[in-house]
Amino acid sequence: MLGFTQRLHDRIFQCKTPALVGIDPRWDWLPASIRENAGSRSRNTFEASAYAFEAFSKQIIDIVAPLVPAVKPQVAFFEQLGVPGFQALHEVMKYARQAGLIVIADAKRGDIGSTAEAYADAWLAGEDPAAAAWPADALTINPYLGTDSLEPFVQLAAKRNAGLYVLVRTSNPGAAQFQDRISDGQALYSSVAATVQKLSEATRPSGEAFGCVGAVVGATWPTQLVELGKQMPAVPFLIPGYGAQGGTSSDTAGAFTLEGLGAVVNSSRGINFAWQRKTYAEQFGEARWQDAVEAATRDMIADLAQHTPAANL
Amino acid sequence: MLGFTQRLHDRIFQCKTPALVGIDPRWDWLPASIRENAGSRSRNTFEASAYAFEAFSKQIIDIVAPLVPAVKPQVAFFEQLGVPGFQALHEVMKYARQAGLIVIADAKRGDIGSTAEAYADAWLAGEDPAAAAWPADALTINPYLGTDSLEPFVQLAAKRNAGLYVLVRTSNPGAAQFQDRISDGQALYSSVAATVQKLSEATRPSGEAFGCVGAVVGATWPTQLVELGKQMPAVPFLIPGYGAQGGTSSDTAGAFTLEGLGAVVNSSRGINFAWQRKTYAEQFGEARWQDAVEAATRDMIADLAQHTPAANL
Repeated sequence: MLGFTQRLHDRIFQCKTPALVGIDPRWDWLPASIRENAGSRSRNTFEASAYAFEAFSKQIIDIVAPLVPAVKPQVAFFEQLGVPGFQALHEVMKYARQAGLIVIADAKRGDIGSTAEAYADAWLAGEDPAAAAWPADALTINPYLGTDSLEPFVQLAAKRNAGLYVLVRTSNPGAAQFQDRISDGQALYSSVAATVQKLSEATRPSGEAFGCVGAVVGATWPTQLVELGKQMPAVPFLIPGYGAQGGTSSDTAGAFTLEGLGAVVNSSRGINFAWQRKTYAEQFGEARWQDAVEAATRDMIADLAQHTPAANL
Repeated sequence: MLGFTQRLHDRIFQCKTPALVGIDPRWDWLPASIRENAGSRSRNTFEASAYAFEAFSKQIIDIVAPLVPAVKPQVAFFEQLGVPGFQALHEVMKYARQAGLIVIADAKRGDIGSTAEAYADAWLAGEDPAAAAWPADALTINPYLGTDSLEPFVQLAAKRNAGLYVLVRTSNPGAAQFQDRISDGQALYSSVAATVQKLSEATRPSGEAFGCVGAVVGATWPTQLVELGKQMPAVPFLIPGYGAQGGTSSDTAGAFTLEGLGAVVNSSRGINFAWQRKTYAEQFGEARWQDAVEAATRDMIADLAQHTPAANL
């Protein structure tokens, strides 16, 4: 029985990289071959799109499973397709687990009391994929409702050896509006961070550095990332905003321990739709989109290795 | 073409009450008759539970549709049952729309950029139930990520004559921890409220008092409710925390206009599981649980009528 962060670190040791690949299927951006094949399967738009999302996501998983420790399906894109979308999401999550990947469900859930318990029970499968309706190792959650809304998630995560990533300082341009409001000399995100550190510390296995409660902090805010790394020593980070959103590998360096642990850096669009980026479009084109996905993943791994010691693990 | 709040007000005029019934099925609390029937349908736990949730929810809808303007399915409880749960949720939402009810999906979603667009597109069917994967009239959303994360929801809500309810001051005991943090003399919830007022005002049809962007404010905080009612004149309120959570009808009075408009007051457990409450258990017992649901709904309507003028509309 290993805690979430310990399981994640095992995979990071294996792969020698903290790269996390987002799974963000969007109909308009899919390779034409996948859209055409799906279109011939069903005249129902949602069913056809869900078929395409599943096929595309599984191919991404096949490509990245030998290279990276974890994937992060974005639930919203599947949710947009109704029941067929959720069927596809379930298949994709199962497939990723079977491929040995850690699966972080990016659902940003949050509620109070027994409703929070229901969301936790829904998503926090943790070590045993069959323990929940949705076989996620970890889930992203929103802290606006307060610590009492986070506790039901933390209790179940600890029990199932699952993980959580609480939104602390998000990657979007408008993140500062509420998250940077200063009260008694402390920004809201820092106050949330203090809570997250406390919750994670309480779940930290003895002899280990990290608990199971993580933090989402955008690569787009390198100063806050360094500050928050110091404030939350027991907290694993999930860093969005690398690549398409403008964050660089050096921006993320502050989040890692000297051993290159304690954080994963996510890229979604930049990997999923790599063949649409100039570099890879010229080299591969749409016909070889899978090769573009692999090249972009390898390039991201090499880029991150410049600034984190994980490559020497 | 009517905006969300205008459609909601039409139903409030019809029913002469601002009572909102939550749909919160929980397996352990369901009437034994419903659990037994479902158990005989499938040996798969999720399928059996989903069957029971659908049957139970539809009976609640049958009972309350002639009495109240709207229902609020709690997505978490359906999500907990995986794909069969979402199938049941979809049936329940469709059924409620067909019964003429306004459907507010309580999903507390929130994300940034194109992901926020995907959630909005998923849930904001608005006037035309076929316009989205999930046929909701309105959706609850979380403001932690900032105004830029709310805007995609607002744009689509305005376009589809759908509604939003942004979490402002939630009903849980720990709501104050982050929501009451004071910066430059203003609490976070008040800063969120200022944003919500602005967004709703921008969607307000000319000649109407309310836009389509609402606020969630708990009945458990009557002082803040009065203050926020004044701060957000163009904003319809969704008030949880009445009944089981301890809020009373007089606590909610501050949220209404002199005409009894501009707010709905939610009860979930108190209605759904009325036959487990002492008053109704004695009168009806589990065998007549439907009668208990109807009596509890009528009693809530009468209770609210004491303090809001909606009964005289």
